[in-house]
Amino acid sequence: MGELRKDPIVARWVIVDTDDPKVPGDFEKEEHSWKSDNCPFCYGNESLTPPEIEAIRDPRTKPNTPGWTIRVVPNKFPALQIEGDLNRRGVGIFDMSNGIGAHEVIIETPYHDKNLPDLLDSEVENVIRMYCRRAVDLTKDNRFKYILLFKNYGPSAGASLSHPHTQLIALPMVPKNVAEEIKGSMDYFDFRERCIFCDIMHQEIQDRERLVLESEHFLVFCPFVSRFSFETWIVPKRHNPYFCHVNNEEIIDLAKVLRQTLGRIKISLSDPAYNFIIHTSPLLGDSDREGGYHWHMEIMPKLVRTAGFEWGTGFYIVSTPPELAAKFLRETKF
Amino acid sequence: MGELRKDPIVARWVIVDTDDPKVPGDFEKEEHSWKSDNCPFCYGNESLTPPEIEAIRDPRTKPNTPGWTIRVVPNKFPALQIEGDLNRRGVGIFDMSNGIGAHEVIIETPYHDKNLPDLLDSEVENVIRMYCRRAVDLTKDNRFKYILLFKNYGPSAGASLSHPHTQLIALPMVPKNVAEEIKGSMDYFDFRERCIFCDIMHQEIQDRERLVLESEHFLVFCPFVSRFSFETWIVPKRHNPYFCHVNNEEIIDLAKVLRQTLGRIKISLSDPAYNFIIHTSPLLGDSDREGGYHWHMEIMPKLVRTAGFEWGTGFYIVSTPPELAAKFLRETKF
Repeated sequence: MGELRKDPIVARWVIVDTDDPKVPGDFEKEEHSWKSDNCPFCYGNESLTPPEIEAIRDPRTKPNTPGWTIRVVPNKFPALQIEGDLNRRGVGIFDMSNGIGAHEVIIETPYHDKNLPDLLDSEVENVIRMYCRRAVDLTKDNRFKYILLFKNYGPSAGASLSHPHTQLIALPMVPKNVAEEIKGSMDYFDFRERCIFCDIMHQEIQDRERLVLESEHFLVFCPFVSRFSFETWIVPKRHNPYFCHVNNEEIIDLAKVLRQTLGRIKISLSDPAYNFIIHTSPLLGDSDREGGYHWHMEIMPKLVRTAGFEWGTGFYIVSTPPELAAKFLRETKF
Repeated sequence: MGELRKDPIVARWVIVDTDDPKVPGDFEKEEHSWKSDNCPFCYGNESLTPPEIEAIRDPRTKPNTPGWTIRVVPNKFPALQIEGDLNRRGVGIFDMSNGIGAHEVIIETPYHDKNLPDLLDSEVENVIRMYCRRAVDLTKDNRFKYILLFKNYGPSAGASLSHPHTQLIALPMVPKNVAEEIKGSMDYFDFRERCIFCDIMHQEIQDRERLVLESEHFLVFCPFVSRFSFETWIVPKRHNPYFCHVNNEEIIDLAKVLRQTLGRIKISLSDPAYNFIIHTSPLLGDSDREGGYHWHMEIMPKLVRTAGFEWGTGFYIVSTPPELAAKFLRETKF
């Protein structure tokens, strides 16, 4: 089982893989994993994954056989393990716990080469519905305090398999940056009695220069303080702290908007690697103050490799101003 | 001139390059910059850099000619500009200022292929002395609140030139992660009246399993809560918040220890890309509470590319436990 360790200086939690640790020779092999033969996520290869957790499939077919359109399986090399207790404890001056959590993979399509922008709107809707279902299901386990949904696309964004998939990690604590974001928006809410994300949307609609697109329910823009060139946010217009509380109309709209946004990023930047993360309030009670939060998606293209020292400092240099990035994305036809 | 923009949610500052912005086609070219012909940092090519700020050179030679062993020049593509005023201002609900700061390059040696581990101890001493001199010099400019010294080694760590060099950025604010680290250590100091870094060193000496090496004045270890596999810290045994206040004996010892540490990382991990950052208190008065801080170096090898979503969440997965990493580095001969 892995371990969770807490930094005594800045209170950040880190997962340490003590179960299947990497030794020096392992790192050089990394390069070769972005290939398509014997893909465990492909149709017909169901036996290559751990048994499925859930799927959208023809009712006449059995689990772990063909007949599916979306499939959810445990990560074969999970960062955290679902069975067991946290057992929080001290080790000298340090704090740690067992590496308890869930690590699932949502296989978005049977087709190896059809990424989200290549799917039908209705297919993307089902992917988003599955995100919600898995998040709601795991929220019932009271060991978990946060459900993180994210996508690594392309090797330089950390993807090890090219078959379209999203990852879900259920964590026994709220990740540090998420907690900070929630605290920041609550502080603003306490002071102004308004949601900062709603205020940012008003400002972006007024300024227009950072807007990428606007639909009935969503606003897509490159944020004023982007950390990465072509960073793009998708924010629901309806104030709602919880991604899980997205309604059916919003899901239908989000599918279109997400396809459009990823499609434009793909075309204007020659199919770059990217990560996207769904930011949501942690469903932890304290709901009055959580009213200050507002769920949204952040898409971060991985265009430069200058991001070394950023980790150590929290200090970012962005080479494409968001006003310029938005202009390119606004004008790209998809 | 670039801009500094402040995130309204988490109060992070970001540098936005509005002067020479990158457009979509520029990113694909990135790959090709790690080559050695016409290297602007090589001996004899002094005219290819902006005029030198300072150098260690034969007194019979003129600035910007051969005859040097260490040379400091302004970054040709500076993230921040030295001339002008900050002019902090609001733009709607956002905060920003002009991109004022210094961005220097310390060319560590005239030789294109001699990195720190390949230099003599005495040569590395002079590099460290130059770090101090530049930091002290820039501290005199009261527009600057933090001096960041860091090295990107290897293209995947963000280096665009392979000739050995270190970068220095003088900032008009303390970077977010540094501020958090200082706050964390001050809180600990207020509570325990002890320095947390001193306490961590005691623990590491007692546990031994994360120690890489110990010299008269420094302790080298892989921290209990490493964020990256083979992350390694070099911490001075003498409690001292400020890197600039390092004494001559410590510099002589640090040169040996830094060479040893980087040499062992190079050998045991097949010359990996890495970043190192000097963490120091910002020399801002409030010195009683800053007594809680303790300068040190953090070396972060860039071994995997799984670091995409980490940026967005502050949530790290480490595949080599620091106990195992330290064992490899302890047993590596250099």
